[in-house]
Amino acid sequence: MVAIIGNGNVAFHLFQAFKEKTEVILVNSHTMENFPENPDFVMICVSDDAINAVSKKIPDTKAIIAHTSGCTPMDILNHRGENTGVFYPLQTFSKEAKLNYKEIPVFIEGRNPEVVAKLKKLASLFSDDIREVDSFTRKRLHLSSVIACNFTNALMGIAHDILSESGIDYSVLLPLMKHTIEKLNYLSPKEAQTGPAVRGDSKVIKEHIKLLEDKPEFLNIYSLLTKYIETNNVK
Amino acid sequence: MVAIIGNGNVAFHLFQAFKEKTEVILVNSHTMENFPENPDFVMICVSDDAINAVSKKIPDTKAIIAHTSGCTPMDILNHRGENTGVFYPLQTFSKEAKLNYKEIPVFIEGRNPEVVAKLKKLASLFSDDIREVDSFTRKRLHLSSVIACNFTNALMGIAHDILSESGIDYSVLLPLMKHTIEKLNYLSPKEAQTGPAVRGDSKVIKEHIKLLEDKPEFLNIYSLLTKYIETNNVK
Repeated sequence: MVAIIGNGNVAFHLFQAFKEKTEVILVNSHTMENFPENPDFVMICVSDDAINAVSKKIPDTKAIIAHTSGCTPMDILNHRGENTGVFYPLQTFSKEAKLNYKEIPVFIEGRNPEVVAKLKKLASLFSDDIREVDSFTRKRLHLSSVIACNFTNALMGIAHDILSESGIDYSVLLPLMKHTIEKLNYLSPKEAQTGPAVRGDSKVIKEHIKLLEDKPEFLNIYSLLTKYIETNNVK
Repeated sequence: MVAIIGNGNVAFHLFQAFKEKTEVILVNSHTMENFPENPDFVMICVSDDAINAVSKKIPDTKAIIAHTSGCTPMDILNHRGENTGVFYPLQTFSKEAKLNYKEIPVFIEGRNPEVVAKLKKLASLFSDDIREVDSFTRKRLHLSSVIACNFTNALMGIAHDILSESGIDYSVLLPLMKHTIEKLNYLSPKEAQTGPAVRGDSKVIKEHIKLLEDKPEFLNIYSLLTKYIETNNVK
């Protein structure tokens, strides 16, 4: 039995991922009213700020207690003793989105090897990619996923705004974006880089800057990333 | 018969896209030595800076002459008369990459409706998504694709560098990235935004900034995009 504490997107999707594989219950993080009798695992799926408070509200239990945060060290759960660890699924979770849970890498940390083994076994119920990492490495993974995923989505928002001025839906970019990611299965980001900055095509860059003249926020982002590619990616 | 002038990635892939559908030949842009007798179309697939010079070297022909650049206006070909236009495939082209040509949107512009119709018909040989746009709109499309595709690839390069310090291959991020793009088929970028910046999770952001203290270039990019999401995307 897995008790998932939380009301957000991670709790929702972990519940979906587990529900056909094992007994699982969603527990309200504020009231804890439906906390089960003897769970085997308690997964804390709340915002980083709330992990400590929630971990103190969990009733006495022999279960393994794990949080699911990329950025919070394992030792935040030390006050709950030896049966504690981390279960970090690396994915972006929106309730509206359908996920292929098999593909989600899960990063495990545990206070002792027994906890690690049990959390790995739990992860194997849905994931094909399970790894053990320490808290510091997990933080780097989290930072990388923010830079890769959250920032890419923000760039798509900027593209959306620029295209909507011409009445074009941003979805026209989705085949390009799909391929941009697919390429990285067999080319490194350095090898895969294309565009005016890596070509040193200053004429095109000037044209783009002109288009962004009245959008200082976009222009700052354009200039900084263009400079980054020019400096680091010249072929 | 389609004559494709150019030695780069666009020339290579247009040749691949056409070769099973129609007669096509690759022409060396420097020598023009293998320019065919009576082509129906001449596609100029060279860097923006070279379009003008190449267009002057093309032998007299009744063919439709089109360039393939996102950022160059159609009128650069005015000196070749009425039978001129633009054939802009919106995709990132690396020679090593396999492409699904059907999915590539092609944006057409022509000096007159007859040229537009002929270029559209040509595009339909491989693409399922053909649209007519003017030079200004095409420039916006090109800018958007640079922001979306080239910059995302640069962000993946940064994630690559951060992860390699922990001995982790950046490929661990690819399921996340695949899903980040897939989500945009049914959520707008604003709806799809996740992460500490949109949640207002300043504790996590501080941790990330600490990790980037000795990498000022990454830190600048992190700070600027985080601020952009905080300002524009608050839910």
